[in-house]
Amino acid sequence: MSKLRLTIAMSLDGFVAGPEQDVDNPLGVGGMHLHDWAFALAAWKEPHGLEGGSVNASTLVVEASLANIGATVMGRNMFGGGTGPWPDDPWNGWWGDNPPFHHPVFVLTHHPREPLGCDGGTTFTFVTDGIESALDQARHAAAGKDVSLAGGAEAARRYLAAGLVDEMEINLVPIFLGDGERLFDGLGVGNPHLAHVRTVAAPGVTHLKFARS
Amino acid sequence: MSKLRLTIAMSLDGFVAGPEQDVDNPLGVGGMHLHDWAFALAAWKEPHGLEGGSVNASTLVVEASLANIGATVMGRNMFGGGTGPWPDDPWNGWWGDNPPFHHPVFVLTHHPREPLGCDGGTTFTFVTDGIESALDQARHAAAGKDVSLAGGAEAARRYLAAGLVDEMEINLVPIFLGDGERLFDGLGVGNPHLAHVRTVAAPGVTHLKFARS
Repeated sequence: MSKLRLTIAMSLDGFVAGPEQDVDNPLGVGGMHLHDWAFALAAWKEPHGLEGGSVNASTLVVEASLANIGATVMGRNMFGGGTGPWPDDPWNGWWGDNPPFHHPVFVLTHHPREPLGCDGGTTFTFVTDGIESALDQARHAAAGKDVSLAGGAEAARRYLAAGLVDEMEINLVPIFLGDGERLFDGLGVGNPHLAHVRTVAAPGVTHLKFARS
Repeated sequence: MSKLRLTIAMSLDGFVAGPEQDVDNPLGVGGMHLHDWAFALAAWKEPHGLEGGSVNASTLVVEASLANIGATVMGRNMFGGGTGPWPDDPWNGWWGDNPPFHHPVFVLTHHPREPLGCDGGTTFTFVTDGIESALDQARHAAAGKDVSLAGGAEAARRYLAAGLVDEMEINLVPIFLGDGERLFDGLGVGNPHLAHVRTVAAPGVTHLKFARS
């Protein structure tokens, strides 16, 4: 069966988003620095239509994280800010007219909404009946490929708590956010049921991979 | 001035001790696994009077962490369990007749006690007037060398919160304790004021070094 693969950046003090998250600052104070290492990479710039960038030990890790993904699952906040019902003129999220996914994306939400098709092959489907339903739909859409769990923290924690994550790549960034949203919080002893597979130390980040043991 | 250097092992979910800590299990459930990588090293076995062991990328890190240390500061729980007053027949802690320090050790406690001399040059001095006093006494005893902050979590957090740590080596172990005592908890945004210096990936551990920026 296709795997559910979580890839997420975390500060050394355990935060995947900084404090004071809001619509203008979805990663919270300092949270954008969790991605400095990635923004510098040619492997990140190229799929986002930018030129230049570095090639280093992170390159293979990023390329592998994007390979063999047929669908994505994400939380509502990862799609676009706000916690209330969709507005009358629905906002199309953070991702612009041509989102970088190029495959079906399933968004966890409490608020029903019609699917949203975008340029470049990305479609957003809004799932209101829970994380297992979203995963089932994503697996079906992925047609044998793996499913990416894109975050945010709450969605990642829910899938981890349910034991549904097959592989996890923690991109550990040696900074301190001091406060914000933790990934590993309240999961309890013995969870996640994932064993360390390998470590890659790279400029500004350490990639730690885990898999179902 | 001599530096205060913190070296501590932490799980990927941020715990420096597991849950259910007590006198029989001072590192809590699973916490001993934070040190599996170290126990396997020749660099750990030799100063503890054991033979054999591995030489790998951790070896230089461990040797450097032990070099140029003239005194140690530790919390009461690191010296020996219990939270009440010293018993009438004072227990001499976890460390046995010949502790591995071989220099003056200053123990933070609320309970006055006479100094304790041990074989091999280790002396334990019990400090009741706060972390700055303990550090001052340790610096004086270190006579120009650095001071090691040996933990536990509470002592480390107090020195970090006070901005007194000059260098920090986090030995990040890719396991999940699920619960227990966090190192980076409640320090607030902008703390610790330490910047990443270097990363060493080794079997079973990643060494992340920070220094006052």
